[in-house]
Amino acid sequence: MFEDIRAIYENDPSVRGSILRFPEVILYPCLHAIIIHRYISHPLYKLKLPFVPRFLSQFMRFLTGIEIHPGAKIGRGFFIDHGMGVVIGETAEIGRNCTLFHNVTIGGTGKHEGKRHPTIGDNVMIGTSATLLGPIIIGNNVKIGAETFIMNHDVPDSCTVVGAPGRIVRMNGQKVDMPLKESIIE
Amino acid sequence: MFEDIRAIYENDPSVRGSILRFPEVILYPCLHAIIIHRYISHPLYKLKLPFVPRFLSQFMRFLTGIEIHPGAKIGRGFFIDHGMGVVIGETAEIGRNCTLFHNVTIGGTGKHEGKRHPTIGDNVMIGTSATLLGPIIIGNNVKIGAETFIMNHDVPDSCTVVGAPGRIVRMNGQKVDMPLKESIIE
Amino acid sequence: MFEDIRAIYENDPSVRGSILRFPEVILYPCLHAIIIHRYISHPLYKLKLPFVPRFLSQFMRFLTGIEIHPGAKIGRGFFIDHGMGVVIGETAEIGRNCTLFHNVTIGGTGKHEGKRHPTIGDNVMIGTSATLLGPIIIGNNVKIGAETFIMNHDVPDSCTVVGAPGRIVRMNGQKVDMPLKESIIE
Repeated sequence: MFEDIRAIYENDPSVRGSILRFPEVILYPCLHAIIIHRYISHPLYKLKLPFVPRFLSQFMRFLTGIEIHPGAKIGRGFFIDHGMGVVIGETAEIGRNCTLFHNVTIGGTGKHEGKRHPTIGDNVMIGTSATLLGPIIIGNNVKIGAETFIMNHDVPDSCTVVGAPGRIVRMNGQKVDMPLKESIIE
Repeated sequence: MFEDIRAIYENDPSVRGSILRFPEVILYPCLHAIIIHRYISHPLYKLKLPFVPRFLSQFMRFLTGIEIHPGAKIGRGFFIDHGMGVVIGETAEIGRNCTLFHNVTIGGTGKHEGKRHPTIGDNVMIGTSATLLGPIIIGNNVKIGAETFIMNHDVPDSCTVVGAPGRIVRMNGQKVDMPLKESIIE
Repeated sequence: MFEDIRAIYENDPSVRGSILRFPEVILYPCLHAIIIHRYISHPLYKLKLPFVPRFLSQFMRFLTGIEIHPGAKIGRGFFIDHGMGVVIGETAEIGRNCTLFHNVTIGGTGKHEGKRHPTIGDNVMIGTSATLLGPIIIGNNVKIGAETFIMNHDVPDSCTVVGAPGRIVRMNGQKVDMPLKESIIE
């Protein structure tokens, strides 16, 4: 939990500016959504308790505008800025120190059973309104630009992806222009 | 109403998996939004009662994040997955067995009077964050991809449209790449 | 405040149609969000009162789905249609008689300190799900289409911008096709 709070403080320029603003972190909807997910909904989901975890998840969606399915696995230091409209699916897996903005979808295509949502590495930043669909793999240290769309394609480590459909525009610090590699062929 | 519930159960893989999860359907914000729209707001709107239908619609928007104008005509078996940020305009018409995802806009361009929102056929699926604007016609059995943008263009039956601006990428099961036909010339 | 109400009445075709519908303007979430911002949160922010303005802003986000940072400067006659998912950053400046739709982001890139959000002129219309990032300048009498993405580029007066990345498609009433001028080089 302290890592989640630190993630807010370090990532948001509007709070970082002044120690007087530190108490504002308790106002962040993502903090409420993540605490309930991490310490209540997800543990109850793993115990296979019916209904209650999903009820909590939907109630937190009402309070925060952030919908995290109780099944989602989320690493430490997770920060969702603004958060309205975020959807994280049941079989999504998110690594450590990831940052999401509002309206990000980590969802499914409707064509898979079982594992049907993305697996995301560590230190990944996903810009506002980006949509990631299907059981794809996003590497470590990846940046995904606002309004990017990725479906059925993987993203390698240490690159920046923008556009709809997403293209790699930076890799290991060098400017490039490459399509993503198709990982799921229908 | 039973058809709306069946639409949830059949369309959402996270519920479909197990009968134990069936009670979760009552948690779906779309179910609350649609029941109030279908059985209260829209009938009162047709009676030309002022204010009350719109008040109910805005109150349901607060509860569910889904904004359905009381004037919208919506067919049976309607399912909105997640739903946050959905906007359906006053003169929109939606056929039977349609599915929408969150952040879908079925709106107007601001340039028309009277009928100014889309007319959508049966068995249409509209992906997250797609935007459909103007009094356009979307055919039956159409799939519209996530983040697709369609304005002032019609979509024929049995095709898949993706991109911004939307292009037809599949028609009657065959891969194609065609622009949409302009239906409204300004 | 009267100008904000007039802005709703004049801009929304679903209210404009009939005087009987005028009372509906009090239902608009944008009106609640803007009144609290204009008359309470922003003045308290200017007095450098800690915590309270941000608390009010987050509470209004909960009620309306519209997140306006208390620091944002907003001119008269401001209208946000639908409004769910709108985010307006701390150092954003918006001129007079502007209209925004739902899911519009007036945000930062995370790479600037101090002034880090857009400055927007008068009579600007920004369509649904458009994203404007960075300390860019948007001129007067500009129209920005739905799902447009603009980052690190300015927009001159009297033009229409669409696409991701945004391009100028109309300027002083003439059809054109021009890229935007880069204003911030990283």
